[in-house]
Amino acid sequence: MSIESNLLKKERQNVTFSVEELTNVWDGGKEDTEIRRKVVKVFGDDPVLKSPPICTMTREERYTEATRKCVYIFRNMLQKNGIYPGSKEFEHFWNAMPIEYTLLIHMGAFIPCIMSFGSEEQVAKWLPLSANLNIICTYAQTELGHGSFLRGLETEATFDRETQEFVINCPKVSSMKWWPGDMGLNANHALVMANLIIDGKKYGMHPFMVQIRDLSTHMPLPGVTVGDIGSKMGFEAIDNGFLYMKNVRIPRENLLNKNSEVKPDGTYVKKASDRLMYGSMVNLRVNLPKSQAIDVLAKACTIAIRYSAVRRQGLLNPGGAEVAVLDYTLQQHKLIPQLATVYATKFAGEGIIKKHQAFLQNMAKGNISDLAEIHALSASFKASVSEQCTEGVEVCRRACGGHGYSQASGLPHLLSKVTPTCTYEGENTVLYLQTARYLVKCAKEKAADLPESILFLVQPIQNARGNITSLDNLALYFKNRAALCVQAASKKVNQMSNKGLAMHEAWDKSSVQLVHATKAYVIQYIFDAFASFVKEVKCSKSVKEILEDLCCLYGLHYINNCSGDFLKLGILTAHHCNIAEEAEIALLEKLRPNAVGIVDAFDFTDSSMESCLGAYDGNVYERLFDMAKLSPLNKEPVHQASYKYLRPYLLEGRDILEGAKSKL
Amino acid sequence: MSIESNLLKKERQNVTFSVEELTNVWDGGKEDTEIRRKVVKVFGDDPVLKSPPICTMTREERYTEATRKCVYIFRNMLQKNGIYPGSKEFEHFWNAMPIEYTLLIHMGAFIPCIMSFGSEEQVAKWLPLSANLNIICTYAQTELGHGSFLRGLETEATFDRETQEFVINCPKVSSMKWWPGDMGLNANHALVMANLIIDGKKYGMHPFMVQIRDLSTHMPLPGVTVGDIGSKMGFEAIDNGFLYMKNVRIPRENLLNKNSEVKPDGTYVKKASDRLMYGSMVNLRVNLPKSQAIDVLAKACTIAIRYSAVRRQGLLNPGGAEVAVLDYTLQQHKLIPQLATVYATKFAGEGIIKKHQAFLQNMAKGNISDLAEIHALSASFKASVSEQCTEGVEVCRRACGGHGYSQASGLPHLLSKVTPTCTYEGENTVLYLQTARYLVKCAKEKAADLPESILFLVQPIQNARGNITSLDNLALYFKNRAALCVQAASKKVNQMSNKGLAMHEAWDKSSVQLVHATKAYVIQYIFDAFASFVKEVKCSKSVKEILEDLCCLYGLHYINNCSGDFLKLGILTAHHCNIAEEAEIALLEKLRPNAVGIVDAFDFTDSSMESCLGAYDGNVYERLFDMAKLSPLNKEPVHQASYKYLRPYLLEGRDILEGAKSKL
Repeated sequence: MSIESNLLKKERQNVTFSVEELTNVWDGGKEDTEIRRKVVKVFGDDPVLKSPPICTMTREERYTEATRKCVYIFRNMLQKNGIYPGSKEFEHFWNAMPIEYTLLIHMGAFIPCIMSFGSEEQVAKWLPLSANLNIICTYAQTELGHGSFLRGLETEATFDRETQEFVINCPKVSSMKWWPGDMGLNANHALVMANLIIDGKKYGMHPFMVQIRDLSTHMPLPGVTVGDIGSKMGFEAIDNGFLYMKNVRIPRENLLNKNSEVKPDGTYVKKASDRLMYGSMVNLRVNLPKSQAIDVLAKACTIAIRYSAVRRQGLLNPGGAEVAVLDYTLQQHKLIPQLATVYATKFAGEGIIKKHQAFLQNMAKGNISDLAEIHALSASFKASVSEQCTEGVEVCRRACGGHGYSQASGLPHLLSKVTPTCTYEGENTVLYLQTARYLVKCAKEKAADLPESILFLVQPIQNARGNITSLDNLALYFKNRAALCVQAASKKVNQMSNKGLAMHEAWDKSSVQLVHATKAYVIQYIFDAFASFVKEVKCSKSVKEILEDLCCLYGLHYINNCSGDFLKLGILTAHHCNIAEEAEIALLEKLRPNAVGIVDAFDFTDSSMESCLGAYDGNVYERLFDMAKLSPLNKEPVHQASYKYLRPYLLEGRDILEGAKSKL
Repeated sequence: MSIESNLLKKERQNVTFSVEELTNVWDGGKEDTEIRRKVVKVFGDDPVLKSPPICTMTREERYTEATRKCVYIFRNMLQKNGIYPGSKEFEHFWNAMPIEYTLLIHMGAFIPCIMSFGSEEQVAKWLPLSANLNIICTYAQTELGHGSFLRGLETEATFDRETQEFVINCPKVSSMKWWPGDMGLNANHALVMANLIIDGKKYGMHPFMVQIRDLSTHMPLPGVTVGDIGSKMGFEAIDNGFLYMKNVRIPRENLLNKNSEVKPDGTYVKKASDRLMYGSMVNLRVNLPKSQAIDVLAKACTIAIRYSAVRRQGLLNPGGAEVAVLDYTLQQHKLIPQLATVYATKFAGEGIIKKHQAFLQNMAKGNISDLAEIHALSASFKASVSEQCTEGVEVCRRACGGHGYSQASGLPHLLSKVTPTCTYEGENTVLYLQTARYLVKCAKEKAADLPESILFLVQPIQNARGNITSLDNLALYFKNRAALCVQAASKKVNQMSNKGLAMHEAWDKSSVQLVHATKAYVIQYIFDAFASFVKEVKCSKSVKEILEDLCCLYGLHYINNCSGDFLKLGILTAHHCNIAEEAEIALLEKLRPNAVGIVDAFDFTDSSMESCLGAYDGNVYERLFDMAKLSPLNKEPVHQASYKYLRPYLLEGRDILEGAKSKL
């Protein structure tokens, strides 16, 4: 057994709580852990899903492998293993997916959209075709020159009464569809969002089913220019595409007409409110943080903490041996707060998922009164979590020194997976401002008119008493800060407006404060939700203590990094801040012996991380060496480029270097 | 002319200062601008240096192209164009280099090392060979299991008296050399740092010239296992390598023996202090920030600001047209402070380069009394600048929305170029702690014994008077904060030690505060140096005003992000903080009309950025479309993977989809 393996073994012997129990808490119960493991095993055992490590493949190979595996999974594996939407197995299914996959937009965006936008008849036609991969369809909304501002989109669908068709056109280069996943190479249909035009009158954005490739030859149809947009940071295996349409004709029936319809004579009929559309957007946003950001940070923590427990460097004690880098306070100060972020955001996110499920039940009864609250909460939560997790993954990556740059560490891949969550499904700054609008509105309302989650905004400020590091007091600090920040930002908008600025100018000039206030609001939500969860969760004393410590650490670390607000607003004194700093260092020391146990509890398989640094056995150096040998540049012992470009000069050197080994 | 081009043209018409004059200030004078442009033109015009855009190539193609071009540059171009080390042209030569190049370690690390470590005779032998590329040599220090802790390295060089050779061995997998650039495929020699052993006694790290590949066949020599370590985040074109040596024998003369020698009978002779070695390490660190971090952020600013001036989104004014995103306060708040960082760090860095030149002149006379100061300053400066620039590039990248993820934007490449500067040439945390040791020591000294740059640590705290946003007052705030932070950290070390902790434990338990204090120290240096430069620079009033505004913005933005310290330490009040916030927003508004002019002044050529978003003409959408067409995945109109894996199912769908175009 290598020295490194032995070190990890010792770490595990010193853990003071039941790792299996924490795994169950993480999964949501013992039964869930079992189901997850079952699904993960089915996928892990299937030889068809084996691929070379992604860090040894070109982008084209990664796309090819991901497509091959996904077609197999969606056509063969799900049904065979009883993994249906709605089943418990399905909930854990993303945990078992290969590291890279395509058809995500087809399965995860198009199919929900057809169900939201299509009439019963249309759903009956398109749903089975797409579920069976008889068609591959992308969701084509963003354009080259237009992102999150929906009304700015320029693609047009003009009704031709004579032929009973819509004619789809991208009037300019900048109006071509750009970015949708699965669109470049795989999709033969696109759900195109386009401006409906009847008799020269514009009716705004509507969803149209447009065939873009031939079903037999897979060649682009006439009028269609389609392809891959090229290499990106993240989603390398996916064929994010461009789609330029010139006079592409589709039958009238291809307008998805659940909410609005065009009659054969060109009459436009509005059938339902567009507000219902928000329901599915919120849906995506509610479910994104866990799988695309929090789990990613959890993996980065697993890698960095296991590696830090076996990597030795320098002499903490000048007389002794080299010590594990995890024994340095500064390394703990980098990594352990990231663990706290994982737990805080995961359990806070579950609170939002529950709220959203209740909302969906109400919506089914036609009651959408909670829409504004759930929208504001989920938007700012997505924005904040994506930023915290991106920052956290980068902290973990850099804490691994040089090897954190190696693709073999798995960390650069995690970074490029998590970073885009700051931008897709709503750019974060735009989302913060949307929530700010809700908060400013709420701050003017009476308590009786507000949902519980937002009440603190208008209630009297409560003072903390006793131990400043208790979870109750920390929750109070965050609430007070959020309330004061929202009030200050609202006041600023009013002041600007009173100075004579138009409302949109006053809003823009206050936007830095508005975003700041929204961040304060969502952090108070996260801390409060996590603290409530920790109080209520049923588990052993030792596991509860871990959760309490992580919760306290989350609060203290945030306060210590952001003490300006708390001081400026009079919530904390300089003395408090000093106590908070000391308390954080003490917590790091306390959590240190359990750090490996806490990441073990995430229960990630080695193959789900493809990390030489983070594997369960700790054999980091053998793994790095084995992976290096697979580098495509090592295929031959002499690379043709060095031979071709350097050899003439090396030969000159041979004559000068007497005795040098040249073997001629 | 496209709408976007027209918008940039208008931006340029509105600039209120002479862009050419600011370019001259940036370059260090009119003459320097001319020389730089001349060198850039020579490289830019040479058809041999043309390559496909890097975002369309595989890693292997990038390595091949970079090697081809570098061999050509170093063998053919430099001499031909009179670009010799020491010439003015040589100083600007890195500005003209292709985006990716290899042989960096050979030219930039090995050659200086041979001159530092080699005797006259050894330099006379190896220098011409390496300058002419008759040998390619890497500098092999770090090992798989050991990074910045030099004494931990495990590779051994054992003296064999009988054969008059050294026998080089890596005893374990974790002791193989790992990471050095140019080592994997190109180098046929390595300057190996190894533990010298004579008759069983260890003498510590010494530099040995080891041939690793045959000069004629380029095959690895017996006992040598060498290759590329695989794909990384950053330096994709470079063959960072592994080197495993088993009983590799080299002649006794291959110990580079300027500082220490082994006589034929095995006697070890120390000739000079190892402290002189620090000189060359400091040298690298002093010159790294400008080319590897500050210029990279300057490019990211150029791209993000030009793009933000042509990208339109949303309606600031509900009645009006869509506006450029640069007109939003939040976008200005993201981007314009990055411009301030570029200027502040660039001119502060020049102060360090000058200090270092003076130090080198003294060192030549045997006086190294300034070593501690220049080491502390350059170490913490490198750490701080690499972090500020990495963060800044990421802010610029995300400010470009979705397109910031496209490799075609050039931004992911800049990010992966700048991020590694946080780790190579000294990991930042290690560097901060080294500087902290110096600061804590200085804080105990008498003023008379300290260099001027550090005097403020022990002098009485001065209070600011008058306008809190004046450059003088801002400088005072930063000084006061640094002094108080260093004092607090020193006090903490003492307290811990008085509690009975051993010194190394007391130091470790105070390390979070020590790093924090060091950051405060280096920020005060940067602000002070930039403010002094702005005061003294000879230029027109309008250019000076730009520089003053950028300096003030740098200070205010930092204070607003980090107000906790200033409040906690009693340097600023809540009222001051509010003024600082308002003043920052006002400055953003003032600088906005000149933003495009300020980035134009960096004078980067389009080909030095390879960015569809940042090109001078602003034709962002045409460029993105043209680049996308070059994606290797678009070579055929139907990609074989989608055809192979999806077509069977698509054909099933054809029978169901009546009227769908299949063209069978």
